[in-house]
This record gives sequence, structure tokens and C-alpha cells, in this order.
Amino acid sequence: MRSSPVAAAMSGHACRVDRRRFLERMVLGVGLAASWPPVFSEGFSGEDMKGQARSEDARIVVFQGDSVTDVGRNREQLGPNDPAGLGAGYASMATGQLLGNAPDSRWQCYNRGVSGDKVHQLAARWQVDCLDLRPDVLSILIGVNDFWHTLSSGYDGTVATYERDYRALLDRTRGVLPDVALVIGEPFAVTGGTALNDAWYPAYADYRAAAKRVAEDYGAVWIPYQSIFDDALVRAPVEHWCPDGVHPAPAGNYLMAQAWLDAFRAVLVA
Amino acid sequence: MRSSPVAAAMSGHACRVDRRRFLERMVLGVGLAASWPPVFSEGFSGEDMKGQARSEDARIVVFQGDSVTDVGRNREQLGPNDPAGLGAGYASMATGQLLGNAPDSRWQCYNRGVSGDKVHQLAARWQVDCLDLRPDVLSILIGVNDFWHTLSSGYDGTVATYERDYRALLDRTRGVLPDVALVIGEPFAVTGGTALNDAWYPAYADYRAAAKRVAEDYGAVWIPYQSIFDDALVRAPVEHWCPDGVHPAPAGNYLMAQAWLDAFRAVLVA
Repeated sequence: MRSSPVAAAMSGHACRVDRRRFLERMVLGVGLAASWPPVFSEGFSGEDMKGQARSEDARIVVFQGDSVTDVGRNREQLGPNDPAGLGAGYASMATGQLLGNAPDSRWQCYNRGVSGDKVHQLAARWQVDCLDLRPDVLSILIGVNDFWHTLSSGYDGTVATYERDYRALLDRTRGVLPDVALVIGEPFAVTGGTALNDAWYPAYADYRAAAKRVAEDYGAVWIPYQSIFDDALVRAPVEHWCPDGVHPAPAGNYLMAQAWLDAFRAVLVA
Repeated sequence: MRSSPVAAAMSGHACRVDRRRFLERMVLGVGLAASWPPVFSEGFSGEDMKGQARSEDARIVVFQGDSVTDVGRNREQLGPNDPAGLGAGYASMATGQLLGNAPDSRWQCYNRGVSGDKVHQLAARWQVDCLDLRPDVLSILIGVNDFWHTLSSGYDGTVATYERDYRALLDRTRGVLPDVALVIGEPFAVTGGTALNDAWYPAYADYRAAAKRVAEDYGAVWIPYQSIFDDALVRAPVEHWCPDGVHPAPAGNYLMAQAWLDAFRAVLVA
């Protein structure tokens, strides 16, 4: 029942996270670690929101993207591991499963997805919504609007714009956070969804290919969401997973969360 | 890592759901069933929101309760299996896991939890927010405010009020929906949470005991959330699971979702 294995595209930059520390502190899906009790009182403070005074023990995950990541998150709840602040999609499900199974981890998860965003809109809020949070693991899923808005909103960016903007964003990120581990999700469109039409084929495939090139060149762990949903369509129709083809139903969010956790494991062992 | 087993309290009324049909249609956590493809086009329609014209194949789950169930759900998204409409808590996580692993099921899940509610406030909106939805499985988690508001808001109800109101609500429910399967969650308070003080002990335990009596007398499957959280405190401190003692963090919501799915399985096999 598990989705396709996540492909770790570790060429190009090596991920320079201190993986030994990660592994020492992580237990993912298998129960307890030996280091209990942790010193939670040394954990996270409001200062961390400004990128200052982060505890030695805190480990930060930031989920970035558009509506597929946002999923109705409460923009007033900006602290780590806040249920409403994480939204109701894959970020929330992955965080719950990660932390529910890893009670002694120091993972602090933030969702900063914003509905409607394209890459250049991520860039416009990147300092506050990414760099200041100083993620150890940065998960990005972006691209559907970079294409879709060319059809729906007169956006004049091309796939070249998308790839150029995406690389610029990651160059900027690496400049500030040289050790950040990257997880890049494949932008997807689930065949048969009500929001899709013939104009998506084959044009949107170019955006997926661009995202994959970027993931490879920046040493990101790649999540092949398109093939995960393609495979899921053998088991149930698009309505079950993602009715409009873009915004997943709970079942689709669950598949995404499982794939994201696979990617997270790949980050830890890479 | 799984939480305590759910105790099926099946005395009193027998749950009269047609379990054979449930079982024929359900695959929970183990993959695929033989009946693919289902006829999804015969599924659910807007009329169902009014309790009319429900498809023969639809199977309805309603999550009812207070803020612990609500968790920031979007009150404008009232349709089934809507991510934002399900909120960011255990209802969302359980629905995603259920449907992600049961692609040929007809389960349609609704969250109708409302922050701040006590039992009598459920009753005031029960026709629209429960009976009209005609649930096959009705999950209720209520009681923390029936106690808490006596401390914080001058509410003059007692544990006797709580139990009387709860029984009246279920009598009314059985009158309209004689076959509904009930899942009743134990109201809980996680020791050490910042919202708790000495006034909770031992008074609040009486509310938990009342809820359990009600569950037993109405043939509900009982979810012992208090002991689930008590057990979790051996593995990590209250901040990890439920910082204020009342509103779970993502890790706590994940534990609740696993326990809820255990209860759901118990409903199916009872």
C-alpha cells in the first residue's frame, strides 16, 4: 500500500547536514530511543521565530509551497508544531506521524505554504518565511501555479522562468543556510481532475522535468508525487485522491505524507 | 508504539449497524479489495447535506465534539472528506489514514466539532450537525468544557447535568438513527498541562467516569484517551503531546487518530 519509493537525487551539492546528530536523536516509526528524558525546557522559544537564540537541540523543518501545502493553515498560528498552523494537509499529517512516533526528537515543524504562490512569490517572502526560521530540513513543493496561472490568470512566466527562479531561490538559500537539507516535491496534476484540461498536456510535464533537474543539481531528496498519484489511480478514481487534480483529498494528503516521510528518512540516512 | 487497545463496551444496546455490508466494503490498513472499480458516480450529492437522497453506497462518519475535535476546521467547507473542513486534528488524520488505505470504501467523513461546546450545546445544533447527516458511525468526544467552564466561566452544570444531558442526546439520536454505531471518546486532561490546576483533581475524574457509564449503557465503542495520554507521558513530557493539557499537539493528535482507528475497527468487527 505504500507509495513509490522516494528517489534520493544526491548528485551535485552534497547535503551537509550533520546526519550523525540527526540519527542520534531520531527515532522514526519504531518506538523509543535511549536518551529519554530530553531537556525540553531548553527547547524552543519565541526568539527562534526571528532566527535568533535557537537551542542547540532544536531541529527545524519548514514546509514551503502553495495551496497544496497551505491547506487552510491559520496564519496567526506561526509557532512550531501548532496543529492549526500546520494546516489540514500532508504537512500536518507528516508532522503528527513523525512526532507521534518519535517522542524524544527535537523536531519543530512549520508550514509556510501560501495558496496561489509561484516561485517568485516564495522569493518575495523568503527571508521571513524561510531563512529566518533557519531550517535544518527545507521541504518545497512549488510549480503548479507557475504553469496554471499562464492559463487562468494571464501570467506570462514560462518554464524557463520557473527553473531560473527556482535555482535563484536555492542559490540564495544555500548562501545563507549552506547545510540545509533539501526535499523537493514534484509538482503534479492528477489525471481526470476537474480543474485540468487538454492545455495541461504535455506542457505541464516540462515543469515537472524542470523541478527534477533542480532537485538533482541541488542535491535534494526528490518526491515523485506525479507517479505516486498515477499509481494511486489504479486503486481508486481521481475523486478519491484529488478531485480537481490539484488539491488532494484527505486520502491524497495521506499518500503525500507517507511519501514525505520516506523522503525525510532518506535525508537522515543520506 | 501503538496506544492502548480500545475497549469495546458493547453491553446495553447492541450496535445494529449492518456490519456485513461494512465488512464487505471496507479494507482498513491492508490494501486493496476485490470490488474495484466502485461506482463512485453513484456516491454522494449535495442533497445528502439535508439528509435526503443518500446513495445506497455512501457510508457516513460524523466526528462530534468541542475544540479537541474542531482544531480550526473551516466552517464554510461542510462537504464530506474536505481537508480544511476536517480541521487539523485527529479527525483529519484518521480520515486520511482510513481513506488512504481503503481506496474502494465509500466512507464520507464530516467534522462537526465546535470549540467551547458542552453537551447541551451539541444538543442545540444536533439536528443539523448530526441527525441530518444520518451517520452510520457517530464519534463523540465531549466533556472537558462541561467541567472546565465551571472553573473558568461560571457555568453551573454539574457532573449529573453532564451525564443527564449526554444520555438525553443519545436517546434522541437512537430515536432517529436506531442503527447508528457509536464511538465515545474519554474526555481527558493531560497531567502537567498549563491550563490545568489542582481544582481538576479529583473532580474531573467524575466526568470521565460518567462518560464511560454512558458509553457502556449505549453500546458505544469506548476510546480511553486519558490512559492513552497517561501512557504517552512515560515516553515524552506533556509539551510534546498536549502542552496545555487540553488541546493536543500534532503528536497527540496522531495518538488520538490511531486510537480512533482502533475504535473504528472495533465497530466493524463487533
